Amino acid sequence: MRLPTKVEIVEVGPRDGFQIEPVFIPTEQKIQIINQLAETGLKRIEATSFAHPRAIPQLADAAEVMAGITRKDDISYAAWVPNKKGIERALQSGVKEVNITVSASESHNKNNVNMSIAESLQTIREAARLALDNGMKITGSIATAFGCPFEGRVSPQKVQEIAQEYLDIGMSEIILADTTGMANPLQVTEMIRKLKNKSKNATIRLHFHNTRGAGMANLLAALLEGITIFDASIGGLGGCPYAPGATGNICTEDTVHMLESMGIDTGIDLLKLIDCAKMVGDLLRRELPGQVMKAGAVPWAVNK
Amino acid sequence: MRLPTKVEIVEVGPRDGFQIEPVFIPTEQKIQIINQLAETGLKRIEATSFAHPRAIPQLADAAEVMAGITRKDDISYAAWVPNKKGIERALQSGVKEVNITVSASESHNKNNVNMSIAESLQTIREAARLALDNGMKITGSIATAFGCPFEGRVSPQKVQEIAQEYLDIGMSEIILADTTGMANPLQVTEMIRKLKNKSKNATIRLHFHNTRGAGMANLLAALLEGITIFDASIGGLGGCPYAPGATGNICTEDTVHMLESMGIDTGIDLLKLIDCAKMVGDLLRRELPGQVMKAGAVPWAVNK
Repeated sequence: MRLPTKVEIVEVGPRDGFQIEPVFIPTEQKIQIINQLAETGLKRIEATSFAHPRAIPQLADAAEVMAGITRKDDISYAAWVPNKKGIERALQSGVKEVNITVSASESHNKNNVNMSIAESLQTIREAARLALDNGMKITGSIATAFGCPFEGRVSPQKVQEIAQEYLDIGMSEIILADTTGMANPLQVTEMIRKLKNKSKNATIRLHFHNTRGAGMANLLAALLEGITIFDASIGGLGGCPYAPGATGNICTEDTVHMLESMGIDTGIDLLKLIDCAKMVGDLLRRELPGQVMKAGAVPWAVNK
Repeated sequence: MRLPTKVEIVEVGPRDGFQIEPVFIPTEQKIQIINQLAETGLKRIEATSFAHPRAIPQLADAAEVMAGITRKDDISYAAWVPNKKGIERALQSGVKEVNITVSASESHNKNNVNMSIAESLQTIREAARLALDNGMKITGSIATAFGCPFEGRVSPQKVQEIAQEYLDIGMSEIILADTTGMANPLQVTEMIRKLKNKSKNATIRLHFHNTRGAGMANLLAALLEGITIFDASIGGLGGCPYAPGATGNICTEDTVHMLESMGIDTGIDLLKLIDCAKMVGDLLRRELPGQVMKAGAVPWAVNK
């Protein structure tokens, strides 16, 4: 079994998780959670979103969050942005890394931002220029890359075209997002192979949801294809607007647990991460989907 | 990605799941669930346990369950047994397939049945003779094959020795059980390779728990090693006595969903299976861990 020796986990709970919580999480709690996450060894945290406050009211306090957190020099506190306006606001908040998205499905993109994919890419091109001109890192997400709740199958060709656009625009890191948890390991394998074949210089990052229980199997498939950057959310925060009651992103501490059990270095202190997940559960006053926070770590995931 | 074309799922919810439910499930409900499972295309259902009623009071109605279900000719309704006495009772109930267990960890075995592994194997040898002499199929489980809640690491050598004992006794199907969900995909891969190397004639069946979130990744690892028989429980029923709040076996419908999505034939009607999981959740009046029952199937897991 050929596995990478090191993997980077990007914590996306404060963005992808918080944005779908039924209640507005108080700004101080958001700051507390992000600061706690920063103590675990994570090197990238998607901390908030500079979407229009009406679009994502749960993250309307993006500027306050960015101003309130204690920034550590060795951590990138990234922010999700929808467009140029979002990047302007992110710049004002001292954000140095932004993440922008288009959907690989026309109907999902239309539903999300009321634009065609081509229109979105035009918007993204302008936004990216502003980011790059200001020395920001910008990463490009491809939503519904493995399936769309409206259209069903998504064309790998379309995913590849968007990836190429992103690369042409000047982004170096492409995120394949299984936004609503429709991927399976075979599909993940094939998609990564196709993309690597055509876009040799791209850094490919994977964003899995566990909506249908296959998140960790998809992660394994991606690992076997040499992928070394994955999004995950603390406690398994998040959800899916099209599947009420379903879980969200793959869970950060479960992911770190599995990786470290296999001897893959994540640079993360698993026990601190578990404590952090418990704190998040306490603050949100609900049981989170994460498993390791309930069952505890196996010794060989911790002592090496 | 080399995957098998066909996989058999053994439904173990009525045994491994029901036995850990906090309340006694009424016999008629057990029968109702088993009969419903039998309509989904499943060909093997572990229907109950002939353990001593004091040891597993939740399954004290084993004889009544076996007498009450509508047996279909093409389905094997297996039962778990602890020893010769259990096999006698199973025989009286017309059971044609039994499953017997020893732990690969001395302390787990001691804790479970107050015997050493060697003593257990002696018991199993006598029991197996009775089963085989009566034309029963008997399968041998190796509990805590990937880790023990008391001892931690379990020796693959010990697992291999037990497997060999089972084969010598006359069993042809060996079940590697990750009883408390401590396995990781790398370990699964290595264990299967070792076992296949030494015990070439054994049919190896895998029994995963999702206690730490890695169940489906472990399944994928086993698939990639050519394993084609897996235990799973409807709705993800079950749990772990050493990890309160943690989930149980990998979930049948999530497993079938992932397999069928990849074009692997399970012979199971996924939509009927999802209906069955919903019925079980309704009967038990609790939210089950299964994901697909909440999110729904992707079209390509159903229409082919």
